[in-house]
Amino acid sequence: MRLSEIAEFLGGELEGNGSIEITGIAGLEESQPGHITFLANPKYKPKLYTTRASAAIVTKEIRLDRLALVKVDNPYLAFAKVIPLFSRTEPPPMGVHPSFIAGEGGSIGQNCRILPYVVAGRRVKIGDRTTIYSGVYLGDDVVLGEDVTIYPNVTILHNVQIGNRVIIHSGTVIGSDGFGFVPQTQVYHKIPQIGTVVIEDDVEIGANVTIDRATLGKTHIRRGVKIDNLVQIAHNVVIGEDSLIVAQVGISGSTRVGRNVILAGQVGLVGHIEIGDQVKVGAQSGVTKSIPPNSVVSGSPAVEHNLWKKSQVSLLKLPELMKAVRDLEQRVRELEKTAQ
Amino acid sequence: MRLSEIAEFLGGELEGNGSIEITGIAGLEESQPGHITFLANPKYKPKLYTTRASAAIVTKEIRLDRLALVKVDNPYLAFAKVIPLFSRTEPPPMGVHPSFIAGEGGSIGQNCRILPYVVAGRRVKIGDRTTIYSGVYLGDDVVLGEDVTIYPNVTILHNVQIGNRVIIHSGTVIGSDGFGFVPQTQVYHKIPQIGTVVIEDDVEIGANVTIDRATLGKTHIRRGVKIDNLVQIAHNVVIGEDSLIVAQVGISGSTRVGRNVILAGQVGLVGHIEIGDQVKVGAQSGVTKSIPPNSVVSGSPAVEHNLWKKSQVSLLKLPELMKAVRDLEQRVRELEKTAQ
Amino acid sequence: MRLSEIAEFLGGELEGNGSIEITGIAGLEESQPGHITFLANPKYKPKLYTTRASAAIVTKEIRLDRLALVKVDNPYLAFAKVIPLFSRTEPPPMGVHPSFIAGEGGSIGQNCRILPYVVAGRRVKIGDRTTIYSGVYLGDDVVLGEDVTIYPNVTILHNVQIGNRVIIHSGTVIGSDGFGFVPQTQVYHKIPQIGTVVIEDDVEIGANVTIDRATLGKTHIRRGVKIDNLVQIAHNVVIGEDSLIVAQVGISGSTRVGRNVILAGQVGLVGHIEIGDQVKVGAQSGVTKSIPPNSVVSGSPAVEHNLWKKSQVSLLKLPELMKAVRDLEQRVRELEKTAQ
Repeated sequence: MRLSEIAEFLGGELEGNGSIEITGIAGLEESQPGHITFLANPKYKPKLYTTRASAAIVTKEIRLDRLALVKVDNPYLAFAKVIPLFSRTEPPPMGVHPSFIAGEGGSIGQNCRILPYVVAGRRVKIGDRTTIYSGVYLGDDVVLGEDVTIYPNVTILHNVQIGNRVIIHSGTVIGSDGFGFVPQTQVYHKIPQIGTVVIEDDVEIGANVTIDRATLGKTHIRRGVKIDNLVQIAHNVVIGEDSLIVAQVGISGSTRVGRNVILAGQVGLVGHIEIGDQVKVGAQSGVTKSIPPNSVVSGSPAVEHNLWKKSQVSLLKLPELMKAVRDLEQRVRELEKTAQ
Repeated sequence: MRLSEIAEFLGGELEGNGSIEITGIAGLEESQPGHITFLANPKYKPKLYTTRASAAIVTKEIRLDRLALVKVDNPYLAFAKVIPLFSRTEPPPMGVHPSFIAGEGGSIGQNCRILPYVVAGRRVKIGDRTTIYSGVYLGDDVVLGEDVTIYPNVTILHNVQIGNRVIIHSGTVIGSDGFGFVPQTQVYHKIPQIGTVVIEDDVEIGANVTIDRATLGKTHIRRGVKIDNLVQIAHNVVIGEDSLIVAQVGISGSTRVGRNVILAGQVGLVGHIEIGDQVKVGAQSGVTKSIPPNSVVSGSPAVEHNLWKKSQVSLLKLPELMKAVRDLEQRVRELEKTAQ
Repeated sequence: MRLSEIAEFLGGELEGNGSIEITGIAGLEESQPGHITFLANPKYKPKLYTTRASAAIVTKEIRLDRLALVKVDNPYLAFAKVIPLFSRTEPPPMGVHPSFIAGEGGSIGQNCRILPYVVAGRRVKIGDRTTIYSGVYLGDDVVLGEDVTIYPNVTILHNVQIGNRVIIHSGTVIGSDGFGFVPQTQVYHKIPQIGTVVIEDDVEIGANVTIDRATLGKTHIRRGVKIDNLVQIAHNVVIGEDSLIVAQVGISGSTRVGRNVILAGQVGLVGHIEIGDQVKVGAQSGVTKSIPPNSVVSGSPAVEHNLWKKSQVSLLKLPELMKAVRDLEQRVRELEKTAQ
């Protein structure tokens, strides 16, 4: 692929030799001759002078002679768009493998790809151009939208509804029973979980994630939410549009997360709280109460981020502070003696 | 279903119009006309005056005219019992799907449901009325009791024993090798894990849980234990009757957890310790030593809960405490000068 | 099996009656007559006087008459080697089950065991003596080495390369997409993940682990690494030879972990940092910056272990320290009044 073709594909401005052949794509440090790279963060600008890449995607104000440039408004986004041009991945074969087993009353859209050993319950609806890999189980009355991708060994239990362009990675379980029990004398009585899970359009869910069905009503993952691997989402949770849930986060029952929220890795949220829009929660934090919109919190229990940061710095000085106080006590005792 | 029928089913006392048709069940806030709701926690009593539900399950002392009441001793338990009356879920088809493949010497009880693409090793015994969903693997000599439910894509490896009425949610792995290695000069030599896992009656295990087999002997989950999603239970762990293990908890090798213990979300326990009966461990705590019965602990490392709480409150005041001490030092220095 | 045969198998020195029949193997406390046990840690030496075992594997300097001894240099390693002699586990049947479905261009080595309902994409290469359990999916161009064991319901996606003698436990996902998105106005644009994962020889990976493919290039697990259950390894991570990653650890994107590192349970590492060789990270720690070789760190955020330990001890005394400071302030105020 010629550089001029890439520039045209991006609608970018070409500076330098457009006829060079681009054979791969890589980061500034990993690039080899023939590769195209990109500069998104101005901090890394010096690396443009040392990269071995033959071309770079950059912002308009960059000037440089040593390699060809493609100038765009958002180099990071342009980079994301160029990557698939260099992918060798073929889609799985078109059509429904004869080993597919489904209950009565279902339907499959056009141009679907269903790989071997997929099982569907009764009345399952699969939208156009959806791909389902091997070992997937779809329970009764599951609905999958259009252009959905379900990777191998995913389990989607009865009544769960999945929107369009949703991607679900391997091993993930959607619609397992919420963790609900009535304590009796010592033993626990199971609360049947008869609600469901609704996943809206453009959601991506990582590998080995668990999303429990609601007790009643629905667990609700709204449009554009991105969920990383090994995340736990309990019954009746709601996650607002375009929020990012990083790996190993756990969200307890009935908690509502707003829009454009970021929960960093290994965060835990207790149940029945509300996380406002645009909130950011630092890695490993434990959130124990509702958080107003636009806050940044950290720590376990989580507090305002800067307060947490200062207290953590102070904590390391605590042993010497204790010594200072003991020393002061001694000196005050001396002064008191003198003063008598 | 008429309200009078529900009252009778619960053995409760009906107050109001028993002939009304109940069409659904929901929480106090989510209920619509035609729904039945419940009040378990007296704190929410005011919501009885605003709920749109047509009937409520309540305790005997509640008096109210605006909606019909069913009075019982334990409304929460009664609610749990009424839920399944409104479930639309059908059980999977009765019988063994012809795609079932098993090694020699096994047996299947009466009225089992085995869905497509289940695989069993040699001498696997499956009890009466047990349901096994698609993609499940049962290793050699696995024993499943009666009325067991194994959801899709669960893996139960050789020799594991499962009691009666056990529920195992999707993606869970029982009987994987414990994490045991002998350090040699730099490299590690694997310690073969030839023990097993025993799961007693009435245990429920969430989705994507991992329970390792013992090195020798057994990992032991006792009667009535409830385990949430994404929990890790290492080799040779014992969990006592009716304990609750919340999502993403990790229990290290050979640790013994008592009866009626509650481990909140994301708790970690080190290996070779003992957690006494009725202990409660707060979310995200890290327990590094044995805990006597009836304790409540929190923090990482975990200490007595109130001590932890006080120290966390103090921690946030630490920066101003440091300023106070520096200020005191200055004033004492002044006093010392004067005193000379 | 006679004790003399075990002594010979280990190349150890027999002391006592070699003709006794050994019927089992167990720890010092769990052993019964007829069992062989071992003493690796001198701390447990007193238990040699109370164990019911008939024989023990010990170091050369142990003297004892009450049971037969097998003396070796490394009793723990010898114990690990003796365990499989008492295993009742049979390997799965030799050969490829007829339900195996593979795309064109693949190859299977000699003496492989492929269980029912395994699916492989195009051009998948499986090395000699490799075992693949039920429900495994191997994507296009996957390469598995020799003597590999892949347990049930594992997913290995396209292009992933697995070395020799690798063990992968059930439910694990290798080669899922890394979590990469370009933020646009509120919505996120997916960064295609076209790199891969390379797993070198002698790696063992636990159950329900997730290892994401690189955005470009490779996520790299080097020779001899041992990974416990429910671990998350993000895109472009590198883990050096013979490192141990304990359960529920999360490693963020592009972080490089050195050789012989130990990450204890539930540790989290942020992205783009470097963990030096031989580093040890305490359980539940959160590592936010690069760590030099041979360090021991703990806490969240992680600091040098002893510093962390001291500050944790002080933290619990903080409430009384605050009281002491308030008391001092009062006394200094009195002194200041007097001094005027």
